[in-house]
Amino acid sequence: MNVTSLQELVIPLPNVEAQEQARARQDRLIKPAGSLGRLEEISIWLAGVHGVNPPRVINDPHLVILAGDHGITEAGVSAYPAEVTLQMVHNFVAGGAAATVLARTYDVDVSVFDISVNAPAETFSESVTRYKVGSGSGRCDTGDAISIEEASTAFFVGRQIAHNLADKGVDLFLAGSMGIGNTTISSTLISLITNQINGDYVGRGTGIDDEQLSHKRVVIKTICERWGSKPLSPLELLAAVGGSDFAAMAGFLVGAAERGIPVVLDGMMSTASALVADLVHPNARSWWLASHRSVEPAHAIALQHLGLVPLIDFNFRLGEGTGALMVLPVIRGAQAILAEMPTFEDAGVSDKSE
Amino acid sequence: MNVTSLQELVIPLPNVEAQEQARARQDRLIKPAGSLGRLEEISIWLAGVHGVNPPRVINDPHLVILAGDHGITEAGVSAYPAEVTLQMVHNFVAGGAAATVLARTYDVDVSVFDISVNAPAETFSESVTRYKVGSGSGRCDTGDAISIEEASTAFFVGRQIAHNLADKGVDLFLAGSMGIGNTTISSTLISLITNQINGDYVGRGTGIDDEQLSHKRVVIKTICERWGSKPLSPLELLAAVGGSDFAAMAGFLVGAAERGIPVVLDGMMSTASALVADLVHPNARSWWLASHRSVEPAHAIALQHLGLVPLIDFNFRLGEGTGALMVLPVIRGAQAILAEMPTFEDAGVSDKSE
Repeated sequence: MNVTSLQELVIPLPNVEAQEQARARQDRLIKPAGSLGRLEEISIWLAGVHGVNPPRVINDPHLVILAGDHGITEAGVSAYPAEVTLQMVHNFVAGGAAATVLARTYDVDVSVFDISVNAPAETFSESVTRYKVGSGSGRCDTGDAISIEEASTAFFVGRQIAHNLADKGVDLFLAGSMGIGNTTISSTLISLITNQINGDYVGRGTGIDDEQLSHKRVVIKTICERWGSKPLSPLELLAAVGGSDFAAMAGFLVGAAERGIPVVLDGMMSTASALVADLVHPNARSWWLASHRSVEPAHAIALQHLGLVPLIDFNFRLGEGTGALMVLPVIRGAQAILAEMPTFEDAGVSDKSE
Repeated sequence: MNVTSLQELVIPLPNVEAQEQARARQDRLIKPAGSLGRLEEISIWLAGVHGVNPPRVINDPHLVILAGDHGITEAGVSAYPAEVTLQMVHNFVAGGAAATVLARTYDVDVSVFDISVNAPAETFSESVTRYKVGSGSGRCDTGDAISIEEASTAFFVGRQIAHNLADKGVDLFLAGSMGIGNTTISSTLISLITNQINGDYVGRGTGIDDEQLSHKRVVIKTICERWGSKPLSPLELLAAVGGSDFAAMAGFLVGAAERGIPVVLDGMMSTASALVADLVHPNARSWWLASHRSVEPAHAIALQHLGLVPLIDFNFRLGEGTGALMVLPVIRGAQAILAEMPTFEDAGVSDKSE
């Protein structure tokens, strides 16, 4: 797959025949048809992305956390100082973050990659910086976050992350992120792409107060107005606003779909990047599952735009992949139900009275 | 605990000090305070019921499925024939039901007990029938389901189940049920106790059509009208309507609370029984966690009456304990977060800018 432009990317659709076989099998399992609701839907989706009914056991799920800094933090949009991005990357490596604790609990491997943290490459080990493309982005309220060339580089780096992990046998991705200021970037991207959000939908991120929230709204409005209603290409959006980590996430989501590996989306950053990836290729969204509904109001709008319905609503507003991790056991349960439950005929149990 | 009447039961409250310590620790963990929403709430509840901060790892969770038949099925309120109760008990033993598949997936032990299945005791092994108290109940639209003496016997049998499993080291219960017709019984109990439901809130159970739904509404209205607005005692409710399996579930929920073992409620049957147990002792509800919101409309009303907020809404309408099972990984995640995450001080990460 020696691709050099976004137009050349080829993304398949999940296997409709396997989905239909899964749906038919669900209806014959020893329970009232439809009585396991969302779990049945997930099992059918999983059969489609695996291309086989029943779907396979998830053996090698992998949380990929892409970290990057954003110049927009200089505009005072976040509750935490920008150096927390760097500190948290150290913390992921040490296994002491919420996402790494949950990943251990649910038996998920974790990779954290410094895509564009504002720190020298030698700050972290080579395993963390091997995909590094930059050090933070410019202020997107006064100029472009990064250049088109950097956006393209980061996009293909993210795609390579997905391909490399797919080569190692990963069979399910969870998309996580770390980056102070990234709900501002996410809200702006969601606004520009969906044309559906206004100031009311701007959220508090990691916890800003009322005054900071008003200011964040103004900042996002300013960025959006810079671009007016001019339709932007995916790379233009990533250069103007997203920065390298969002570009890498968009490329990662596209790369996973190219390889037919399902991805569980998480919160604002992965979902805003998914909107960009969706502009790159309309088939990509078929490979994604929405995990949770974030406290951030724009998140639900972005998911709706993608036609995805989140599974849980736990009032999370942390990112890191924590929402995606919470639904991994649900996916495992859905797979087990379809693969292990007998049908009415198998079990000799009376079906609905006819 | 040689108790012979419901008035003598003593149920402690969870440990408030441990809860407060847990809340304080959550606020210092290396994430924005409150950013893990419901997961934080569960961890604090778990610290209270364990009486220690951080709460312990759940080592021995146990799904208890209480099975019973109901004479009201003769009134034609269910989509499935009554003999499915018996067939499904065989299926639980064989490990081929939805609940047993999910229990294997999430590493949960399962006990299924024939409390009042309409079958001779020799139908099942002694391990299944050791707590059997009857064979089905009478039609509660024309008379009492069981006698007050049977209700009392079944209540104390259920309590004994909780005590015996607590003696064996179970540290978390999941409350499951099996019984054709039991959403009719549940809806009626919820109506009588909350005075809040009417025909609009009667649901389709395992999947009846519009005509059957209208009929089910009439049947429930008939049962409710037999008792008018006369306040009934817990044993009167269980005798008049519930039958032995509901009586045993109410006793089980009380018995778990007596011993300080937390219980994850499931769908209609366990939640309706919880309403009765709540009448027995107001402290019992502090030991319960609501898992899912069932498709059955009366379920949300019952949970609200108990002051419990369900964690997930997956459109389940199966029972068996399937909803409770889905949230066990969530509880494990909540425990791990509070026990394993470092604080800002531990990790040397900057807290919110002051």
